[in-house]
Amino acid sequence: MSFHSMWAELLPIGRAADSGGYRRFAWTGADTDCRAWFRQQAETRGLALETDRNGNQWAWLGDPAAGNAVVTGSHLDSVPDGGAFDGPLGIVSAFAALDELRARDARFTRPLSIVNFGDEEGARFGLACVGSRLTAGQLTAEQAHRLADADGVTLPRAMEAAGYDPDALGPDPGRLDRIGAFVELHVEQGRALDLTGDRVGIASAIRPHGRWRFDFRGEANHAGTTRLADRRDPMLPYAETVLAARREAALADAVATFGRVRVEPGGVNAVPSLVSGWLDARAAGQGSLDAVVAGVEEAARDHARAHGVDLTVVRESFTPVVEFDHALRDELARILGRATELTVPVLGTGAGHDAGILSGRLPTAMLFVRNPTGVSHSPAESAAEDDCVAGVAALADVLEGLACT
Amino acid sequence: MSFHSMWAELLPIGRAADSGGYRRFAWTGADTDCRAWFRQQAETRGLALETDRNGNQWAWLGDPAAGNAVVTGSHLDSVPDGGAFDGPLGIVSAFAALDELRARDARFTRPLSIVNFGDEEGARFGLACVGSRLTAGQLTAEQAHRLADADGVTLPRAMEAAGYDPDALGPDPGRLDRIGAFVELHVEQGRALDLTGDRVGIASAIRPHGRWRFDFRGEANHAGTTRLADRRDPMLPYAETVLAARREAALADAVATFGRVRVEPGGVNAVPSLVSGWLDARAAGQGSLDAVVAGVEEAARDHARAHGVDLTVVRESFTPVVEFDHALRDELARILGRATELTVPVLGTGAGHDAGILSGRLPTAMLFVRNPTGVSHSPAESAAEDDCVAGVAALADVLEGLACT
Repeated sequence: MSFHSMWAELLPIGRAADSGGYRRFAWTGADTDCRAWFRQQAETRGLALETDRNGNQWAWLGDPAAGNAVVTGSHLDSVPDGGAFDGPLGIVSAFAALDELRARDARFTRPLSIVNFGDEEGARFGLACVGSRLTAGQLTAEQAHRLADADGVTLPRAMEAAGYDPDALGPDPGRLDRIGAFVELHVEQGRALDLTGDRVGIASAIRPHGRWRFDFRGEANHAGTTRLADRRDPMLPYAETVLAARREAALADAVATFGRVRVEPGGVNAVPSLVSGWLDARAAGQGSLDAVVAGVEEAARDHARAHGVDLTVVRESFTPVVEFDHALRDELARILGRATELTVPVLGTGAGHDAGILSGRLPTAMLFVRNPTGVSHSPAESAAEDDCVAGVAALADVLEGLACT
Repeated sequence: MSFHSMWAELLPIGRAADSGGYRRFAWTGADTDCRAWFRQQAETRGLALETDRNGNQWAWLGDPAAGNAVVTGSHLDSVPDGGAFDGPLGIVSAFAALDELRARDARFTRPLSIVNFGDEEGARFGLACVGSRLTAGQLTAEQAHRLADADGVTLPRAMEAAGYDPDALGPDPGRLDRIGAFVELHVEQGRALDLTGDRVGIASAIRPHGRWRFDFRGEANHAGTTRLADRRDPMLPYAETVLAARREAALADAVATFGRVRVEPGGVNAVPSLVSGWLDARAAGQGSLDAVVAGVEEAARDHARAHGVDLTVVRESFTPVVEFDHALRDELARILGRATELTVPVLGTGAGHDAGILSGRLPTAMLFVRNPTGVSHSPAESAAEDDCVAGVAALADVLEGLACT
């Protein structure tokens, strides 16, 4: 099955008619359909399908127990109204690269697996990379059991509804011990390759990043009759905080975003009682990230105080800087440089990935495919088919270099 | 049935366990329960219950067809997590005032009706005073049929689900022609009576007010990888606009509020594509209201342009200044002054009411009952029982003065 037809088969699943974006959220019907597509791809190729205790899918060529396996893959879930490429490109490219290696009559000396990690985006339960975090022991089963979506459905109930056993959740060190290298191909979520004119690049590092929830608590009141002086309106310090985040990020050459906000009671004619805003902040280094968050929090506290509003700030997630394994990265550069007679660019990224989660346990690397606009997490996310095909070829070269004689 | 026991019976209906506030939204189960309570009160008193084409309930003493009726009442629905008093106080007081008049052996010379107007708050469909607007011909059936709630349920479907016929919706001029005066008692939504030390006041006017929706359209993107310079983030001009609204309102001695905001896609790790914010603005006069809205809109346009964001502003509703009927207002003052030997304060309000809608068609007046904190549209909304009883006595005096020999 060609890259093109695999892609076409996956494209309609979980696509929203109104926005054209994807809503493939963990343990929903769209997620189940994506998983069925993955199973079908594995079966078509005679690969042995395993679903691990955390719901991640593994399609094996060779003996999983032999050890020193080479693993590639990514995820199939999406952010709300996300694009088609973030995640799926890595999995479709993995199957296509295997097809390419078989066409080359490559002889495998190490087991190969293609993986689909569950709930990478965290769109439903608010925590990213749940599947890989659980497997790597970075998230405990107890913590996972407490996750709930916006409708109050807990992760265990959602898993059960999808036919999975939440009691099985937990770390999987034996599985990770049998992996020698993990390589994740991903659409670039920025314009570095477009600016250099390269189709494919290699990741150097994932910038440190985290999410902080700012809860501004004021007092609900009638919007028409309450004098300004009598108000404790949490929308005002929230607005000041949004602007402070942009200022602090600009100062530190970082990025900071408020992309989600919740207002209670949310009536058009009511002063809010509560405004919760989520800050996503990322920087090149820990020092500058700390400076951004401290600056935003200070501004939030000052403005909350000035408006008689209470503020609590909760760090909901945090990932320190991830330097991908230098030896594996250099090997990828050597393999690709030999294949293309070009120097392949090495670039950092501000996005979290399952490869980042696993990098603490085993050698991991990432390949990026050019994104002409840099747009991601949006229906407008795109990559040229030629560049995707170049990505498949690069991944095939890498897998051949690592796993074949 | 005493004021106290009527109040206690109504109190649990539609009360949210988490907030202690009310969620009595049009055509929901809580609304149906409120309507059943109203019907029961009418039956208990031997009043003839009518439900008009727009779903408003009327409990009649005397012949509705006789004309020159005196009508009192208010509404039973609530804003999201609203208080117990806004609306229900006027209806409970109406029944209690009728009981008081019967205890006085008052002899009615005009028909009396107690009314429960549907969907006053507009919490579900975004437009306030739907029941009275339809009856007064200020909202057409076609416009009402296009209203939809946040889940996409249209008003006609919601009415049908509650057992009402949406095809009947429309103006009801004959009904209004048979009303000689409408008096609405309401909890004050401010602290004017608390500051003067009076239990009851008379309304002079409703300030002009309206709702405007500001849609900021930018470009969804990855919050971690998109450089600040490449962003078109609509949250930033939204935040600037929130702050501009407060500044403009302070300059014009007006009020302006952003109490509702919607973000798309709403992912923690996504730059938003759309931020919609609802401005509620009210001022003492039309000139100052215009100045506030023009100032906010200008700031919104400037900041949207600076961030490469598109802006559309839609006026969703607007009510010009309402001066209550001077003759009726003076008559209320005379009746109450004679009864209490005190001058009853006359005050303006920034809140819209069914009485304001009907004031274009017939003489209307309002009585306000003291609110010790001024808080409204919140679970903390309150009135002392003594003050409520004083409100009942005042309403009984007014109805006796207007409708009895």
